[in-house]
Amino acid sequence: MEVGPQSEAVLNVAAAAVGELAISDQVVTPWEVTGTSQGVNYDKLVDQFGCQRIDTALIDRIAHLTSRPAHHFLRRGIFFAHRDLNQILDLYEQGEKFYLYTGRGPSSESLHLGHLVPFMFTKYLQDAFKVPVVIQLTDDEKFLWKDLSIAESKRLARENAKDIIACGFDIERTFIFSDFEYVGGPFYENMMQVAKRVTFNTLRGTFGFTPEDHIGKCCFPPVQAAPSFASSFPHLFGVNDQLRCLIPCAIDQDPYFRLTRDVAPKIGYPKPSLIESKFFPALQGEIGKMSASDPNTAIYLTDKPKVIKEKIRKYAFSGGQSTTELQRKYGANLDVDVCIKYLNFFLEDDAEFEHIKKEYKAGNMLTGKLKDHVTDILSKIALAHQNARAQVSDEVVDAYMSATPRPNMFGTYSDYAKS
Amino acid sequence: MEVGPQSEAVLNVAAAAVGELAISDQVVTPWEVTGTSQGVNYDKLVDQFGCQRIDTALIDRIAHLTSRPAHHFLRRGIFFAHRDLNQILDLYEQGEKFYLYTGRGPSSESLHLGHLVPFMFTKYLQDAFKVPVVIQLTDDEKFLWKDLSIAESKRLARENAKDIIACGFDIERTFIFSDFEYVGGPFYENMMQVAKRVTFNTLRGTFGFTPEDHIGKCCFPPVQAAPSFASSFPHLFGVNDQLRCLIPCAIDQDPYFRLTRDVAPKIGYPKPSLIESKFFPALQGEIGKMSASDPNTAIYLTDKPKVIKEKIRKYAFSGGQSTTELQRKYGANLDVDVCIKYLNFFLEDDAEFEHIKKEYKAGNMLTGKLKDHVTDILSKIALAHQNARAQVSDEVVDAYMSATPRPNMFGTYSDYAKS
Repeated sequence: MEVGPQSEAVLNVAAAAVGELAISDQVVTPWEVTGTSQGVNYDKLVDQFGCQRIDTALIDRIAHLTSRPAHHFLRRGIFFAHRDLNQILDLYEQGEKFYLYTGRGPSSESLHLGHLVPFMFTKYLQDAFKVPVVIQLTDDEKFLWKDLSIAESKRLARENAKDIIACGFDIERTFIFSDFEYVGGPFYENMMQVAKRVTFNTLRGTFGFTPEDHIGKCCFPPVQAAPSFASSFPHLFGVNDQLRCLIPCAIDQDPYFRLTRDVAPKIGYPKPSLIESKFFPALQGEIGKMSASDPNTAIYLTDKPKVIKEKIRKYAFSGGQSTTELQRKYGANLDVDVCIKYLNFFLEDDAEFEHIKKEYKAGNMLTGKLKDHVTDILSKIALAHQNARAQVSDEVVDAYMSATPRPNMFGTYSDYAKS
Repeated sequence: MEVGPQSEAVLNVAAAAVGELAISDQVVTPWEVTGTSQGVNYDKLVDQFGCQRIDTALIDRIAHLTSRPAHHFLRRGIFFAHRDLNQILDLYEQGEKFYLYTGRGPSSESLHLGHLVPFMFTKYLQDAFKVPVVIQLTDDEKFLWKDLSIAESKRLARENAKDIIACGFDIERTFIFSDFEYVGGPFYENMMQVAKRVTFNTLRGTFGFTPEDHIGKCCFPPVQAAPSFASSFPHLFGVNDQLRCLIPCAIDQDPYFRLTRDVAPKIGYPKPSLIESKFFPALQGEIGKMSASDPNTAIYLTDKPKVIKEKIRKYAFSGGQSTTELQRKYGANLDVDVCIKYLNFFLEDDAEFEHIKKEYKAGNMLTGKLKDHVTDILSKIALAHQNARAQVSDEVVDAYMSATPRPNMFGTYSDYAKS
């Protein structure tokens, strides 16, 4: 699972036709996202996938129910689509609980800035709704798709767990698991329940698999489906197999969960709800390829400020004019400017963000100044993450990954009193 | 896994073309065996599958190495084919150890007589070579292929475990496991190692799967492959991932292990060796269909003597003549006589068996007398099994199925002194 908005897959211009998922020249699968020269057309994607847009009323409802401002990822349209989110909120309003499920495919040692986005958002949902989170590390997926040994996939899973923990998840409400460690028992039973009800032809239509592909690819979708069902986690949810699940993820994961939602009623479980984000752009913009193996396309969480400064200066695609004079005269094109896109993700202050956009568009702010500002913001995030990660001991990782009950996972009276 | 020589699959005359496995009008897959009007042509099967015949020299060598007479299943050609059995014996002669792996697909409450055959033979190998046995109960397979719930498949697995234990396996050298309980950890890692190296097209060619089949069918072959590798059982074999495996099974399981043997060297493991049996005939003979759902085709281990007598009398296909006079005059056709076939399996005394065949063929013995004799022998086996099974408590099942070390599994000095 790559929950993005990230990643190696994000902006892969290499064309690979993948069956029914191609939207004109745009391809979006869990393993590949190919934008057009205008970037990814999210409106078309929502129509193609059949999910719903998140509107202002829904955002206001979340703010109201959680008694706190909606996250800027919601206000800015970064998490922009959903499936049955209203149902989750209806039940929550009636006092029902739910749990969150997200995950990561541990294919690299260093995470990008973009990898943080789903975890920041999931942590916000955990804090706002006071609900448990299960986080799947799909080391099996990465072993199956990449040229990695099982041992290396498992090692990366554990390293990535440290980055995830550094995002501040509540240790009393969070269970992080590696597939290679956790598959078995009721989880395996749910995998087989799903596998029995999905044909190879369905996988061909959904993911573009071919008969020449190895069957590990057929084995994996049930693994990503299983955490959508509460009964996969008896140590957390006991016999409550009707507990609802909400999945924050990037929209390229939608095919997995369309499939999961089709199967759910056939096996007596509720359909998981989804809240889906756009992708995180590469330095080169939405038509370049961000790749973990090409350090010049991505800002890693391990990058030092001077590296970040250099990457932004050299590679961040600018919508500004080529000279100071022209910039003052014509202003910048905000739609293609990568620094503006990054501020959209990481500058929380709406007023400051609007001010910068206005000044930059009008030509009053120069590209260099904008880049300095973005460098400053991203460096602070990276340094804060590096500090937080350094605090994560092996014992702490073990605690988050232990398949044991979390008695306070739905919060206590004092939690509600605080909020 | 159905290790036969048995079963529902054994003699299914319903034609279903299964790709490359069809030998003229004969079809043999793990789920279907269709004989011709002359029964199953095992010679053609050996050639088609590419395994080796077991010859007298090999049988003599087993007797010599184990310091005991070869089992009559070997002497009578019931276990008749192998793959790399000589390698196992070479290593054994040099003091190397190996382990045995067999299994059962728990699709029914009551086992047939035929279901006993692989377990009787495996127990003989365990006793003769003083080696550990792992026995896989493929409750996942039966859930995937049959109209059974997971709970029912698991219940049947445990019931069948009692029948298997009643065959007398050594509790210090035997590990019985249900897939739904045991899949996970290193076992799951080996499943994924296999899955990554097998394509859907290979499964289509090997088993006749189609793209309309559910993907559970693709998920299962790696589950049956995994026990061939010692590293799937760390509680038994620790880090010894090079320990050789010998698989006693009916020849319809050969496709699974051809596939496993292809993959083994690619993932750094030795290929499992095989010792393969013919099928156990239905009462109606080798062209009728033996089915667990049709009680008139099979003798169950739970049948009382009078039921066995009635089934043999009414249904056992006879090679004898239609009247006493004709039988005295022409004698019987042994090749099609089911009672003779059953004696071949279950009358251990070679001299007595030869005497009966001679008398019956010459017309000196009448069909009724032969049937009485067979009834007597089979009733004794069934009663002995019923008694043995009644002794198997839940605690004993738990002991056989516990994933804990078996410190004496390779025998002690006293074992060797005894033999």
